[in-house]
Amino acid sequence: MAKYEGVSLSVVRRLPRYYRFLEDLLSSGVTRISSRELSEKMGLTASQIRQDLNCFGGFGQQGYGYNVPALRGEIAKILGLEKNTEAILVGAGNLGRAIATHMGFENKGFNLSAIFDSSDKVIGQNVRGITVMDTKHLDVYCNKYKPKAAILCIPKEAAKEISEKLVSLGIKAFWNFSHYDLALDYKGIIVENVHLGDSLMTLCYRINNLESDTEK
Amino acid sequence: MAKYEGVSLSVVRRLPRYYRFLEDLLSSGVTRISSRELSEKMGLTASQIRQDLNCFGGFGQQGYGYNVPALRGEIAKILGLEKNTEAILVGAGNLGRAIATHMGFENKGFNLSAIFDSSDKVIGQNVRGITVMDTKHLDVYCNKYKPKAAILCIPKEAAKEISEKLVSLGIKAFWNFSHYDLALDYKGIIVENVHLGDSLMTLCYRINNLESDTEK
Repeated sequence: MAKYEGVSLSVVRRLPRYYRFLEDLLSSGVTRISSRELSEKMGLTASQIRQDLNCFGGFGQQGYGYNVPALRGEIAKILGLEKNTEAILVGAGNLGRAIATHMGFENKGFNLSAIFDSSDKVIGQNVRGITVMDTKHLDVYCNKYKPKAAILCIPKEAAKEISEKLVSLGIKAFWNFSHYDLALDYKGIIVENVHLGDSLMTLCYRINNLESDTEK
Repeated sequence: MAKYEGVSLSVVRRLPRYYRFLEDLLSSGVTRISSRELSEKMGLTASQIRQDLNCFGGFGQQGYGYNVPALRGEIAKILGLEKNTEAILVGAGNLGRAIATHMGFENKGFNLSAIFDSSDKVIGQNVRGITVMDTKHLDVYCNKYKPKAAILCIPKEAAKEISEKLVSLGIKAFWNFSHYDLALDYKGIIVENVHLGDSLMTLCYRINNLESDTEK
């Protein structure tokens, strides 16, 4: 059963942004902030912030505002950032290697424990201190270590087959960079799609339609 | 003035996905599809598809469905994919190099014409056939070639200063990978944020909250 039932994904998607802003405040030495100040900084209304946080219990105090380290800690707990879910990355091409190297998985709730690729050129290479393994060893690895999440940086053509295999091996969640809509195939599996091409085409539309409204 | 006024960004954000599905259909030789079949394939309702496409004029024919190549062509035109907007990339670290190498800019409306970095280790390197230039040459380059879009793959700390400089040099649109909310600073500038960290933390929440609803 979900801990926070009925909280919409659009509210959930704003939580990491709150977390980022609170981290920035903390690193500039701010430990207390009014809801008005926080709302101005984030470009949201104070009432939106209150509504969002109330979904998880609310954390402001009338006349005091928010305690920055406490709120940051609460949001980290709600997000589950201390959980260290075991994750594997499949596809160590340019994008996969960059994601592996660039992302701070540890402070975002994950432990990247293995990297797989099917190309002889890449297998055996060291990426972020991890030796890239042959995808044909996925079975053995997953049966032994039971990772729960997979980061997919493989071409669209391979996504269906690899994701089917991973689901059969017990993967419950995907961070999906392949241009393929995994969620359509798997009920009960969690998918976060990062469709970079869609984002770039949206930018293209907005430039060519001379649209300049901003968006949070 | 905007060509498609009043069309919401959430509709616009679905267009690239239609485009992708139509490309897939075409490459499997499908040239005609009913709105029911298309909706099943995409996990949307037929009425949602009709509503979305009606924002741009509607393209189905009663009793025939959609002509796949024609609809794909229309969506490409709406998105402006043939426009070849000049874009520069700033920040040729792991992520920047991967984005430069991995993305098909040409068929998504952009021409990536230059890459900049401030690190001596990277300046002079060849990425996708482009020699990485020193960011101190941004002024000269932008004044001469007048690029309209910038892809930001720089650390958060550098984002404010570099984006201010780029706006002063005539950049009108950002594809922003830095963990910094550019849109808050610039009214009238188009920003597409790709907050990979936010996406990863959202996945973390969904795993830890055992949520498995899917999302389009």
